[in-house]
Amino acid sequence: MSKKFQVVGIGNAIVDIFAHIEDDFLTENGIDKGIMHLVERDRSAELYAKMGPATERSGGSAANTVAGLAMLGARTAYVGKVKDDQLGAIFAHDMRALGATFDTPMAMKDHPEETARSMILISPDGERSMNTYLGVSASLAVGDIDPAMMHETEWLYMEGYLYDKPASQHAFDKAAQLVKAAGGKTSITLSDPFCVNRHREAFLSLIRNHIDLVFANEEELKALYQTDDLSEALTIAGGDVDMVACTVGARGAYIVADGEEYHAPATPTNVKDLTGAGDLFAAGVLFGLATDRDLQTCCRMGCVAASEVIDHVGARPDRDLTALFKAEGLV
Amino acid sequence: MSKKFQVVGIGNAIVDIFAHIEDDFLTENGIDKGIMHLVERDRSAELYAKMGPATERSGGSAANTVAGLAMLGARTAYVGKVKDDQLGAIFAHDMRALGATFDTPMAMKDHPEETARSMILISPDGERSMNTYLGVSASLAVGDIDPAMMHETEWLYMEGYLYDKPASQHAFDKAAQLVKAAGGKTSITLSDPFCVNRHREAFLSLIRNHIDLVFANEEELKALYQTDDLSEALTIAGGDVDMVACTVGARGAYIVADGEEYHAPATPTNVKDLTGAGDLFAAGVLFGLATDRDLQTCCRMGCVAASEVIDHVGARPDRDLTALFKAEGLV
Repeated sequence: MSKKFQVVGIGNAIVDIFAHIEDDFLTENGIDKGIMHLVERDRSAELYAKMGPATERSGGSAANTVAGLAMLGARTAYVGKVKDDQLGAIFAHDMRALGATFDTPMAMKDHPEETARSMILISPDGERSMNTYLGVSASLAVGDIDPAMMHETEWLYMEGYLYDKPASQHAFDKAAQLVKAAGGKTSITLSDPFCVNRHREAFLSLIRNHIDLVFANEEELKALYQTDDLSEALTIAGGDVDMVACTVGARGAYIVADGEEYHAPATPTNVKDLTGAGDLFAAGVLFGLATDRDLQTCCRMGCVAASEVIDHVGARPDRDLTALFKAEGLV
Repeated sequence: MSKKFQVVGIGNAIVDIFAHIEDDFLTENGIDKGIMHLVERDRSAELYAKMGPATERSGGSAANTVAGLAMLGARTAYVGKVKDDQLGAIFAHDMRALGATFDTPMAMKDHPEETARSMILISPDGERSMNTYLGVSASLAVGDIDPAMMHETEWLYMEGYLYDKPASQHAFDKAAQLVKAAGGKTSITLSDPFCVNRHREAFLSLIRNHIDLVFANEEELKALYQTDDLSEALTIAGGDVDMVACTVGARGAYIVADGEEYHAPATPTNVKDLTGAGDLFAAGVLFGLATDRDLQTCCRMGCVAASEVIDHVGARPDRDLTALFKAEGLV
C-alpha cells in the first residue's frame, strides 16, 4: 500500500488542563485514581474551581498518537470535533503546526457546548486521574467522516473513548467500513478499563468483525476478556484479531501476531506524568508498521516513544522522537 | 503597617503561549532575541500560525510576582483586565487558585478585543523572545482601581509594561497616589530595556516623585540612566529612590538602600527557560520586605525564588517556594 495517509486517527479532540495534586484531593472529591471519569459541565466547573493553578496543552488520546506520528515524519491526519472558540483554535493550531492534516468542520460559535477539556490531576507518583468534559467533541458524527480521506488511509486508528457517545460511535463504525473497503487496515485502543467495562460487548463485536490491530494496556485487556491472567488474555485476543499490542507498565510491552510473541523492555526514565504513555506507544508501533519494520522493532519503537512523554508533564513529546529513535539504533 | 494586603500587583493580565524554537525562526520573522515585542492582532495571528505546537499557562509579569507571593503565603491581590472568554477564565482561575484576591471587572463578551496573550519563543539557550498581543489588558483604566483596596495596601507593585498604553498608565498613577496617601509604599519593575527606552522620561519622573523601590535587571537600569557602567547606574538610582533591587543574571542580584549595597549570588540551577526570573526575584524580595527581613535576606529570597522558575518552562513556580526557602535557611 502507498496511500496519501499512512495513519489517520479519530478521537475526542480535547485540550488538557494539568495540575499537580495530593492524593487527598482525589478522595475528598470522589475521584478514583488512575481512571478517566466523564463529567458534565457543572461537575467540570466545580472541580476546576477547587483545583490549583494549571497548565493547558492540547491532548486527546488519538490526537496525541497522531502528534507523535507527525513528529516522526509520517503522513498523518486527525479527525475530531472542536468548536470555533479559543481552546478549539489552540487544539487546531497544535495539530497543524506538527504537519498533520486536520480539517474536520468546527462546531460554530452558537453551539451550546464548548471545546472539550480534560482536567488531568497528577499525583506525586506520576499517576493521572482524568475528569473529561466532552463538550462538542462528542458531536463528531458520520457526516464528519470524509470518504475520500478514508479511501486514502493505510491505517485507521481510533480511541475506545469514542464509544462513550453514540454519535461518535457511529462515526467510527463508518470510518472503519470505508477504510476496510478500500484495502486499508484498522486499529483501536481500548483506552481505559472502565471504558472497556462500559462497552465490552460492543468492543468485542467490533474487534472480531472490523479490526486488524488492538492496542491495550494490561488492565484493559484483562477487562475485555474477563480474566486475571495476561497470557490467557493475549492468547484469546490473538485469536480475535491479526495483531495485539499490549503495554505492561514498567515491564515494557508485548506484540502478539500470527501466534508469535514479541517483547520489548520499558525504556528507563523518570516517571513524572504517565499521561500519553499509551498514546505514544501506539504512535511508535504504528510508525514501525507504516514503514514496514519487523514487529520486534515496532514494539521497541513504541516503548521508546512512550518513554519520552512520561518524563515531563504533558501528553505530547517535547523532544525530537526521530533523534531518540536514532540514539536507540531504530532508524 | 499591618494592612489587609501585604502586596498588590498591577499589570497586564496575560496568558503565555510557550513554544521551543531554533534561533533561525527569530531571524526569519524579524524578532529580536530576548526582547518583548508588542504585536497587534494580525501579527499575533501570523506568528501563531507559523510557530510550532505550544503550551498555555497564565503569565503576565506582575501577575507572576503575585502568584509567587501567594504561594509563599503572603496576603496579596492582583489588579488586571481579562475578558469573559476561555483564556480569561483560565487566568482568573489560576490567580484565585493560589489564594490571591483578583476581582478586577472583566471585559464583557462583546468587547472587540480578547484576553491578552504572549507568544513566548524559547531558544535552545533558554533565552525567551516575547510577542505580546495586549488585547483587553490594555484597557485597564482608572475606574478599575478600587480606592478601598489601595488604602489597604502595604506595598504596591507595578510593571513598566503598563506604560505602553495610556489608559493603564493613568490607572497606575492613580493607584500609586492612593497607596502613598494611605501610608503605603510603591514599587515598579522596569520590565524590559526597550520598554525603558520607550518611556524613559515618564519613568524617571514617576520614579523620582512616587516610587520607593525600583526593580530592574542590569540592561534596564543601564538604559534608564544611559550609562554602560552598572555601578554608576546603581549609584544614581540610589539617589532617586529609597531602594533599588537589580538582578545581574548568573552573577545574582544587588539591593542598594541608604548608601549600602547588598549582594546575593545566583542559586545554581539548570537554565531551561528564563521567563519569569525577574518576576519571581521581585516576589522573593517583596516577601522579605513584607515580613520585615533584613535586606541581605530579602536579596537572597529573590535569588532563590528566581532560580525555581528558570529550570522549567513557565513563568510561575512548579515547586513549593516555602520549602525551598526552608532548605536555604531563609525561613
